[in-house]
Parts: sequence; structure tokens; C-alpha cells
Amino acid sequence: MYGQKSAVEIDTDSFFKTLPAESEDAKPASAHAQVPFVTPLREMNFVLNEVLDAPGHYQKLGYTDLTPDFVDEINGAVASFAEEKVAPLYSSGDAEGCKYNTDSSVSTPRGYKEAYEEWSQGGWSGLTVPEEYGGQGMPLSLGVIKSEIIGTANWSWSMYPGLSMGAINTLLLHASEEQKQTYLTKLVTGEWSGTMCLTEPACGTDLGQVSTRAVDNGDGSYSVTGTKVYISGGEHDMAENIVHIVLARLPGAPEGTKGISLFLVPKYLPNEEGELTGEESADNRNVTCVGIEDKMGIKSSATCVMGFENSKGWLIGEPNDGLNQMFTFMNTARLGTAMQGVCHMERSYQGALPWCMDRASMRALSGKKYPDDVADKIIVHPDVRKNLLTIKALTECGRAMIYDAALKADGMLDDDEAVREKCEEELGLHTPTMKAWLTELGIECSSLGMQVYGGAGFIKDYGMEQIMRDARISTLYEGTTGVQALDLLGRKIILDKGKELGKQAKLQIGEAFEIGTSSTAGNHNLRGHALEVASLSTQWVTTSMRIVAGAASDREIVGSASTDFLMFSGYISGAYQWLKMMNAAGTALDANPDMDAADRSFYESKLHTGRFYFDRLLPKAYALRDMSIKKPDSIMNMPLDGWDLATTLPSNSGDAYAGYKPE
Amino acid sequence: MYGQKSAVEIDTDSFFKTLPAESEDAKPASAHAQVPFVTPLREMNFVLNEVLDAPGHYQKLGYTDLTPDFVDEINGAVASFAEEKVAPLYSSGDAEGCKYNTDSSVSTPRGYKEAYEEWSQGGWSGLTVPEEYGGQGMPLSLGVIKSEIIGTANWSWSMYPGLSMGAINTLLLHASEEQKQTYLTKLVTGEWSGTMCLTEPACGTDLGQVSTRAVDNGDGSYSVTGTKVYISGGEHDMAENIVHIVLARLPGAPEGTKGISLFLVPKYLPNEEGELTGEESADNRNVTCVGIEDKMGIKSSATCVMGFENSKGWLIGEPNDGLNQMFTFMNTARLGTAMQGVCHMERSYQGALPWCMDRASMRALSGKKYPDDVADKIIVHPDVRKNLLTIKALTECGRAMIYDAALKADGMLDDDEAVREKCEEELGLHTPTMKAWLTELGIECSSLGMQVYGGAGFIKDYGMEQIMRDARISTLYEGTTGVQALDLLGRKIILDKGKELGKQAKLQIGEAFEIGTSSTAGNHNLRGHALEVASLSTQWVTTSMRIVAGAASDREIVGSASTDFLMFSGYISGAYQWLKMMNAAGTALDANPDMDAADRSFYESKLHTGRFYFDRLLPKAYALRDMSIKKPDSIMNMPLDGWDLATTLPSNSGDAYAGYKPE
Repeated sequence: MYGQKSAVEIDTDSFFKTLPAESEDAKPASAHAQVPFVTPLREMNFVLNEVLDAPGHYQKLGYTDLTPDFVDEINGAVASFAEEKVAPLYSSGDAEGCKYNTDSSVSTPRGYKEAYEEWSQGGWSGLTVPEEYGGQGMPLSLGVIKSEIIGTANWSWSMYPGLSMGAINTLLLHASEEQKQTYLTKLVTGEWSGTMCLTEPACGTDLGQVSTRAVDNGDGSYSVTGTKVYISGGEHDMAENIVHIVLARLPGAPEGTKGISLFLVPKYLPNEEGELTGEESADNRNVTCVGIEDKMGIKSSATCVMGFENSKGWLIGEPNDGLNQMFTFMNTARLGTAMQGVCHMERSYQGALPWCMDRASMRALSGKKYPDDVADKIIVHPDVRKNLLTIKALTECGRAMIYDAALKADGMLDDDEAVREKCEEELGLHTPTMKAWLTELGIECSSLGMQVYGGAGFIKDYGMEQIMRDARISTLYEGTTGVQALDLLGRKIILDKGKELGKQAKLQIGEAFEIGTSSTAGNHNLRGHALEVASLSTQWVTTSMRIVAGAASDREIVGSASTDFLMFSGYISGAYQWLKMMNAAGTALDANPDMDAADRSFYESKLHTGRFYFDRLLPKAYALRDMSIKKPDSIMNMPLDGWDLATTLPSNSGDAYAGYKPE
Repeated sequence: MYGQKSAVEIDTDSFFKTLPAESEDAKPASAHAQVPFVTPLREMNFVLNEVLDAPGHYQKLGYTDLTPDFVDEINGAVASFAEEKVAPLYSSGDAEGCKYNTDSSVSTPRGYKEAYEEWSQGGWSGLTVPEEYGGQGMPLSLGVIKSEIIGTANWSWSMYPGLSMGAINTLLLHASEEQKQTYLTKLVTGEWSGTMCLTEPACGTDLGQVSTRAVDNGDGSYSVTGTKVYISGGEHDMAENIVHIVLARLPGAPEGTKGISLFLVPKYLPNEEGELTGEESADNRNVTCVGIEDKMGIKSSATCVMGFENSKGWLIGEPNDGLNQMFTFMNTARLGTAMQGVCHMERSYQGALPWCMDRASMRALSGKKYPDDVADKIIVHPDVRKNLLTIKALTECGRAMIYDAALKADGMLDDDEAVREKCEEELGLHTPTMKAWLTELGIECSSLGMQVYGGAGFIKDYGMEQIMRDARISTLYEGTTGVQALDLLGRKIILDKGKELGKQAKLQIGEAFEIGTSSTAGNHNLRGHALEVASLSTQWVTTSMRIVAGAASDREIVGSASTDFLMFSGYISGAYQWLKMMNAAGTALDANPDMDAADRSFYESKLHTGRFYFDRLLPKAYALRDMSIKKPDSIMNMPLDGWDLATTLPSNSGDAYAGYKPE
């Protein structure tokens, strides 16, 4: 089994390529068409090898075997699995959804369990886990790419192993050795899965309100009581046990976020040897799924209400340090959700492109392009091209942003705390922007993918509308867009006194200067773009300074500026990545004038797409800048009774008046 | 019955207020919560009476009885019906959807039929139909407001009477007197309903490809054969007969759009007296519903595939004049779809506001606002307020834009052709912008309404996600956003040589000047806004001139500029309406310094909301302007093989290469 081999010993032929034959049960149950899915390995390799120098990075980290070819082989193996086993369940999983049964169990759609078993048997859950716990010890960045591939194939399915990764990483950093031996090893093999239990009915963002209680049983264990909601993978039929990582309060703990501790609470209690007893049944569950949510999308991901009632659990780390521990991996987790935006954009593009190449409607304004046909293919129409290019341009810079960050995240598991801290700081600046900007764009682009289909985009048979429904959750969970924006401006810039922002801006200006003065820039018209990246990088700093200066006299400026500022930051980062990608493409073209037609087309496509980004998307940055520096008055001055409660909503209003005491 | 009385005789007490008791069947079947719905009559009256002078307009048209009070009474009666009978079916209708039965019939959700019957008995379908055909002879604008009210209550339900209105208006202008007496009168009473059958599997936008055939039977009737898709209300159980208005080709007709004729094809053939024979059954249907679509939203609106097979029909108007006739009412129909944007925005706001007033999370950055509570209500947070204000600001200027246009549309049924033509021209400039801009914003705002709920927004129980799913269709049907944009820039501006655009810009500049120099502007800080409206109105013209100048040498400029230019136009029109609304609010405040607190709050809220629009939304106009004047190169230069077909999508690509012959 791959998971039990070390990286250097991997026999890729036998482990990556030999996937179990498709089971009978895995056939899609839906009549709906399947949006095609092909892993864009060439795109991924371009970013890794030609834009970011991942090969050099891996060598520097000591992963001497991680050559471009070997990385491609690993990704290719994930791709085969994703395309053959997971992608075919995308539509059927949505159509079937999860079922909550009378015995409080949850059934996942047909084929999900089988795919999960194959995934586990392949050892994929342990790809980035140290070898001492049964993993492969690969860098985290490869885990991010793994998530991208299975997430693009079927986001909902990928959430089950994805949540396990959250539990794995938390246990890795904070659990006792005993806890690791009992629980982590089972999570690594995939025999057991994991969840993160944070949210309660009264609080999601505001975890200081957590009211789940834990009482010391005197034997090293605790009794945990409370209700957790929106728990992804809280209950399902894919693994034999589920390990819940739970935020709860000890008696007498301080109020708010400083009184929250972290607990490990398994669905079934293992025996002293850490094994299940064989008597697992509805009667002896330690945690009960009380129900599942009926949602707009990601219907095959079970979103559970979990009831803890004197559920036996164990403290992870120190008391009252729970939020801190839970948030150690928050940046990495948010990287994963940022990736969701890219996954849906990629899927949307792959669904939209063939339709635009095939559907015939109207004639090009500049004259017939398919003179022998009744009408031109719609790919000739500027507005259709603009929609496709928008998706393509954002997908590709989104991927580059995430890979760039993922390589930084490789330091998160370093033994040296200084390395971890530096990594955390660099990553910290980027994650809120990536999470919020890319997920907002994921919704926008999945909508554009529907748009080019016309009315057919709205019909389930064509497979496009599911992408938008699935994408819609991504700006809500793992911290809403507004929360990310406050994190960026408040914590990552103001609290940091702009240090990381300044460093990053300086780096971008330096690279822009270097690219802009190169012969490549001259050959491929990149000078104007380099200048704009440098200029915007400067404005990024000055705009933040202007906001911060205003905040000294009015704290509300931070909140009212933050979302526009974050989106502004996103467009700048996108431009920076596009400049680097265009430079890499131009460099390749210049270095090898005799390259074959397919390669030439690939690199020239990069230049075309990048130009589109600068021409047709980047101008939005200036509007966002202008909106972000406005005074907060027009947002803050509306009094409570100005929202029309008095005139149109007398009976449906909330009780906002009760207890309202503005200074 | 109201529909059989003339406007002057209406006894509003007995006809508007006495609605039949709720039937047992009408109870919602769904467990999902209902987003509250209250008709914003105060808002509507403000726009009609204080911003647009609808009372003066109605007097001028000769509707002497249409005083503000009477208009409010009519709207109030629609509101009561909508709130009591239609809104309660919003969630349940979505959960149940329509069912296609083995006998090719379609069942609508519980309560739909009963609500439709009450609506018909109330005579509402005939509100704007001339009295000679059994209607009330009210101006079209009141029909638009009627559609708004029932559309906000339950868009999908409102589509059934909405499509009938399309058939009614088409027959009114183009059918023979005999056809009117037989079919129109039944549509007016609601006994029969209507559809518009344009789209076919191979063509939606490009109606020149219509392939449905009609053959002369020699007895005045025709045999119609073909398949029509996406036919809203094509089959259902709410009316006893359905009148299809069908685009088809006569033998030997010219190719393309010039060879299309319009036919009337009833589901069941009436006898010589124009009555049903009583033998209507699955066996003797003249038209067959072949299936219904499974869609992302508007699930309770039956979207049908209609099979015509030697179906007996009658020519409407002259041969080969079908598209022309179908499009007579296109501007009015598009006004109705533009309204859909406002309906969903209003509904989203009404759903979002109580949550923001009630949900407690975190503390205001400027200090506790609810010191006795565990956390502040989220209405204190800038980003939440910004989302709410965005919905509010766009809903209100959208409503004003539509009412403004609807009053212009009142001339569409005038006996004088010159009046009709003037009306068509004025309306023509506005409809594509309103249709595309407001529906795009309808999606954006319904998404923002979900966003303030956090994770709960994604859960069906909270009722917000349905609004976004329902809204998503609106940029696709009745001409996609891209089609509207070409209509605006190509037909309504370039073909018109900028005449209407110039007139409208001049009007806006004049009004801005008048407002900007008034004492009201001084009292309420409107001068800067007036200046910006004047400046943007000028830029509206100059930007269009710049695009047109470029188009002389490159036709693709029109298509590549059009969508951004349309959105630019939308934000300008919104600013113009906001300036007028702020002026009206300021005028009211100045005129009556002793008004009561609720009135004061109402008018001040208008000023706050308007300021928000200028501060935080209007800056987007400048980015759209800048994007619209870019050269088309970055959109048009990508060659066919640059879309990554060669590298990532080899097997899934369409056949775009076949037959491609660029000049």
C-alpha cells in the first residue's frame, strides 16, 4: 500500500497506476449530463516548473526525489483516480444527495463509499503526513495540488478526505503521542475519517459564544455536551469511525475565546488497544447525528447537526488553548477553500468551452466565419469570448496564487519554530485575499459558464448550474468574505504594522522592474504591464496607509473599507501572477523558436490571456481602490429606523431596538 | 366580476378587498421557512407620486379617476392578494416543483391552481386590456406594477399570468377581430392561458434558424409541425385551455428571420362558437407537451418541450411578418423581465433585514452597541450594512427606472401611431439596459442577501437560497445580457445615430443642473451628486462616440465593448434616478419641517441610501467605462487552438475547426 512506503521507495507503476476496477455500484444514478473533466496537468506543470521554480524549492527543502517528472507522475496518478473514480459521481451525487436514516445514520450517494475506500487504499490521505505516522512525508504543497485535482473532479466528495486532513493536521501539531498513535494513524490510512466541530446554532464567526461544555471525568477523559451545526462529514457511511475535533468549555473557563478548549471525541470509542470492539451499532454511538441540512449545493457532502450528550472525549493540548490550536492550521485550511474557487472556475471553463465551440448562433459582426454553416459557432462572438476569457484568466492566476502560497506553506510542518513562524507570516498576508477573492470569483465564473449556454445553462441536463450551486457555499464557510476582509486589513496589515505588506509590495515591484527591463518584455509587449504591476503594488501600500490613517480617528473605517480593499488586493495579486506567467511564456518562446505548434500555441495563449486580464479585468482594481478610501459615513450613518422597518416591515423585523445603546 | 366592469365603475370595496377564503389545498407543503413578504407600497407611492409625477401623467392621458389614492387602492388590492394567496406558496412551490404525468399533462404545485382561479375571478388578467375585450382599460404602467407585486411574492407563479399577458398583447395588436373575439376574450378572463413559442432546440437568440413548419390547409387554417423548447407555461393544470403563439415557416418562405410567420395554435380546438366542446382529453389535444425541464430555479414554473405535429393553427397578421409582430411588444416584455431583478432584490432585502436585526455576533469595532447582550446585532457591522445598503440602493433605483419606463410605455396602446412610435423609441433605449443591468444585479443582490446569513444563507430552511436560484434565469431568457448589450449599442444607439441617447443625456444634464442649483441641493448636499450625474451623462455620450468611431475600422469593437458599456449605462441611469429621489426626499423634508418621525425617517433614509449609491457603487461606472473603450484585440486575438483544446481538452472539444474560414 502506497501509504506505508516512504517517498523514495515509491514504485509509481504499481501504486499510482494500478487502480481497482470500477465497481458496479459506482455507476452514476443520474440522468443528467456530466460536465467533462480533464486534469489540466500541463497548466499545473507550467506554474510549478516555469513560473514558480518548485523544483528548486523542493531540492532546497531536501526532497531530492521530487523532480518535475516525479511530481507530474504523482499528480498524474491523482488525476487518473479523480477522472476515473470521482468525477463520474459529480452529477449523480448531486441528484441523489445524502440521506438521513431513522437510525440516525447517513447514507452517501451511490459510489461514494467505494471511491473513498479506493482512495484510502491508495494511501492518499497520508501523502503529506510524516512517515512515522504512516504517511509519505511529502510537502504540504503536493497535498494542496492533490486537493485541487479531486476537488475539481467532485468538490463534495473531496470534502470527506478534506475534513480528515483538517483533523490530521490539528492532531499532528497539538495531540499527545498516545492520541496520535490511536487516532492519527487511523486517519492516515483513511480507515477513520475526521471532522472539525466549531459552529453552534448561536455562533459561527463569533466563537467566543461557544457553549458546548466539557466536564472532567477524573480518569483523563471528559464528558462533552452540546450541539454543533454545519459539521461537514459529521456522519456518513464511508469510514468505520469518525474522529471529531470539538471546541468546548471547561467549567469555570474564562468567558469568550480565551475559555475554549479543544477535545477529541470519537463516534465509537476504541478499546485500550485503540481498535474498535466490533460492537459498533446505533445503540453505542458516543456522538449522534441529529439531522442533516438540505442545501443549495454540495448536496453530496453531508452537513450534519451533531448532538454531544455526555460524549466521552479527551483534551487536546492545554486547557483554554483551543481556539489557538484550531487556528494553527487556519491559513492552510483557508488555502484549501480558496482552491475551491479555482476548482469551480476550472470545471466551469471545461464545461463552457466545448459548448462555445459547437453551438451555432448568429453571424460574427465582422462577417461570416463558418460560411458553409447555417450560423457561426458562438466562439466567434466577442461577448462569449469575453466570458470564456474571464473564466480562463481568473482560473489561471488563481492557480498560480495558490501554488505560490502552497510552496510557502511547506514550511508549516518544519521542525524549526522560526521557519514555521516566517511561513505563517508570509502565508498569513495572502490567505484571506485568496480565500475571499477566489471564492467570490468562483461564483462569478461559474455563473459566466452558465451564461454562455443561454437558457440551457439553467437546465440541469447540461451540468453547468450545479457548479454555481456548489460554488455558492465557498464565500460563506471557513470565514465569510467580510471576515476575511477584516482579517486582512485588521490583523494581517494593521496589527502587523504593514510589515508583510511592505515586504510583498517591494518584492512585486522588484520583480516587475526586473521583468519590465528584460528583453522578453520588449519582445512580448510586457513593459506596460510591468509598470502597472509596480504602480499598483505601490498603491496597495499607500491605499492601506490612507485607510489606516483614517482609522485613527474613526475605527469604523477599517470595517467599511475592508471588503473593497481585499478585492483590490486580489486584482493586484492576480496581475502580479499574470505578469510572471506572461514573462515565463515569453521566455520560453524566445528560448526555443523552433518549438512545436502545440507548445507555441500554449505559450501564446498565456500571453493572450494575460493581456485580456490587464485590459478587461484589472481596471476594476481602480474602482475598488476608490471605493475603499471613501469615508464610512454613507455606510454607518443610517439610523436603525432608516432601514424601512417602520414603513414596510413592521411585523417581520427583528428586535434590533431592544438593548441598542450607541455611545 | 372586476374584469367586466369599466374603470370608472369599480367598487373597490367589493372587488378588491373581498378575496375568497384560503382553500385547504393552498397550504404550503414545504417544511422550509418562508421569507417574509410585505408589498412596499410606501416605496412605490414615493416613486410614482413624488419622483415621477404619475398623477399628472395619468390626468394628461385622460385617466381622470387615477388619483394617487385610487392607484394606491388598486395596488393595495393586488398587494393583499399577493401577500395572502401567492406569497405563501413561494417555498412550497419550489419544494414541490411541477410534475410531468404519464398522460403528458403537467401538475403544478399545491395551491397554484386555486390562486390562479381567484386571480382570474378577480379580473386581474384584464387590468390593462381595453374594455371592448372585457378588460379594465387601465394604463400599461399599472400592469407593470401589478406584475412587480405578484412577481415579488412568487415569481414562478406570476409567470403563468405573465405569459398570458404576452399572448394578450400580441393578439391585441396583430390578431384579426375574429381571433380576438374567440381567443383574446378568454385570455382576458383567465379561463384560458397563453404562451409564446419562439425557441427551438437549435436556436434561441438566432430565430432565423426556426425550422417549425406551417402548411396551409386550404380552409383558412394551417398545420403546424415542429418542436419548441423552454416554453414557460406550455402545459399546466390551471386553465382549461392554452393558447400558443408560435413562430413557424410557410413553404417557400425566405430564409432567415424574414421568412417567419406567427400562428395561433390552441391546445384544445374550440367549436364554431369559440367554446370548448366538453370532450377535451389527452386523446384530442392539438398540441402535446413532450416533457418539462429540471431546472436550477423557478421550479414551479413549468418549462415545457412542446411537440406540434400537424397541429391546427391560424395565421396571425401577414405571412413572413412573424418576427416583427413578436417583437412589437419585446420592449414591454423586457421591462417585465427587468422587473424580475427588482422583485428578487426586494425579496432578498426583506429576507436579509430581519436576520441582521436579530442575529448577534461579535462587537462593533467602535465599541459595544448592545452592552447587555452577549454580542452586538450584526446590523452594526460595516460589511453587513454595506451588503444591505447595496441591495436597498439598487432595488430602489431599479424600481424608479422601471416605473419611469413604464409610464413611457403607456403610449404603446395609443390609437395614434405617432404616439406609439415615439413611445417605442424612448422605451427602446432604456429596455436593454434595464433588462440586463437589473437582472445581473438581481443575481448579485440575492447572493448578498444570502451572504449576510453566513452559512445559514446556503440552507434551504432559511429561505434565502431559493431567491438566488430563481434570479439566475433572468439574465438568460428574454435575450441574454450579451444580446441586450448588442441591442443597446448596435440597434438603439448606432442605428439610431445616437439620437435618443443624446436626447436622454441632455434631459439628464438639464435635470441635474436644475436640481444642483436648487436650495434643496444646498440644504442636503446634493450639488456634488448633481455634478457627477451631469458629468457622467456627458461621458455616456462621448464614450459611445468613441466606441462608434472605432467601429468604423473594426466591427468587433461593438461586440467587445457592448456589455461593459451597457453596465456603464446602468450605473449612470441608477445615479440619475437616485439624484431625482434624493431631490424629492429633500424637497419633502424642506417643505414640511414638522412632519412626523416615521415620515422624516423615510425621507432621510432615501438621502442616506442615495449617498451610499454615489459613494460605494457608482465608482464602478468608471471602471466599466475604461474597460469598454479598450481595443478588442485582447478579446479577439486568441486563435481557435489557443483555448487549450490541444493541451487539456482533446476529447471533449466541440467541432469548432470544422468549416472555420476566417477571412
